[in-house]
Amino acid sequence: MLKTHYIEKTLKPESDMVDITSDLEDIVRKESLTNGLLFLSSIGSTSAITTAEFESGLIKDLKNTFTKLFPFKKDYSHNATWADDNAHSHLRSSFLKTNFFVSITEGKLDLGTWQQVILVNFDTKTRNRKIAVKVLS
Amino acid sequence: MLKTHYIEKTLKPESDMVDITSDLEDIVRKESLTNGLLFLSSIGSTSAITTAEFESGLIKDLKNTFTKLFPFKKDYSHNATWADDNAHSHLRSSFLKTNFFVSITEGKLDLGTWQQVILVNFDTKTRNRKIAVKVLS
Amino acid sequence: MLKTHYIEKTLKPESDMVDITSDLEDIVRKESLTNGLLFLSSIGSTSAITTAEFESGLIKDLKNTFTKLFPFKKDYSHNATWADDNAHSHLRSSFLKTNFFVSITEGKLDLGTWQQVILVNFDTKTRNRKIAVKVLS
Repeated sequence: MLKTHYIEKTLKPESDMVDITSDLEDIVRKESLTNGLLFLSSIGSTSAITTAEFESGLIKDLKNTFTKLFPFKKDYSHNATWADDNAHSHLRSSFLKTNFFVSITEGKLDLGTWQQVILVNFDTKTRNRKIAVKVLS
Repeated sequence: MLKTHYIEKTLKPESDMVDITSDLEDIVRKESLTNGLLFLSSIGSTSAITTAEFESGLIKDLKNTFTKLFPFKKDYSHNATWADDNAHSHLRSSFLKTNFFVSITEGKLDLGTWQQVILVNFDTKTRNRKIAVKVLS
Repeated sequence: MLKTHYIEKTLKPESDMVDITSDLEDIVRKESLTNGLLFLSSIGSTSAITTAEFESGLIKDLKNTFTKLFPFKKDYSHNATWADDNAHSHLRSSFLKTNFFVSITEGKLDLGTWQQVILVNFDTKTRNRKIAVKVLS
């Protein structure tokens, strides 16, 4: 009953974001959904999915907030474990989370006019991000 | 298979909160649900849904925490984009999120005694907030 | 159609964490799921579910971040309400949240290699934590 789709996006390092609302609308069209739910799982522990008004000012404010609340620091314990530099990326992902669902009514995503679904890459490298989307109708 | 209900609440500005647990229990009763899931989508990018013990002390602590972590500031970039004042409202919503589900077992919401589902209006204006609720059983 | 499982874990106070990925994999096996969704509800308002790379360095970083963003303070209003000491536990739970879903494709959880599902006990006491898991296939 559940169909599976995938969304793949290449994102730059350090909180690069992409609006995936139109990718979700494509799935709604392809599946001819009128009433349903899309369950999104971002695979990996240094990314996140949330909603935001996707405009350049707010994108900048979000990035500054990530930096303020979960700053890059070389001396996180996770960085020592792996001689790595992305502990802050993991912390941001755990707080924002990698699962998200969107419901569909009369063929439209239940979102506000200024509310987009966004994918964030918190990692310190360019990453190809993959989202599994389960379609329930 | 999925039924759609709506919950609408008028909330005052700046992190006004309402306990919507009894609205969800009404849906459980109307639909005679014994085993199921309710999927809540708060439509709009300056609100959020989460769980909390809904008592006046904790409500005050939550509001103080929103202010501390995501303070009002006139000079956010989003405010410059729209000559607006609600960038902090958007940031809070993206962090807390607008989607939430609650499961139902033997006709009861799977919540603790001191755990209520709450809707928050982060906007700087009084807003009529609308939640789409998909019922799966 | 929805089956219900429970995961129970005894966790120590103050952000003790446990990796519950293998508990979820057990449910996938028992139910012979190839394609589906698991909906997790942590019952209680001082716990949370999220994903993280479950290694000792990152666990330490997460705990430090909880302390930094939502510090223990005796003088929260919630503590005055109940002559209690766990207001910070509630705040952390509301921010991280108690609901989480994981999708399953070809019999495997849609998670990355370094991405585990973790349960956190934020309370100031040792607690037996119960998660209701609804299985949708």
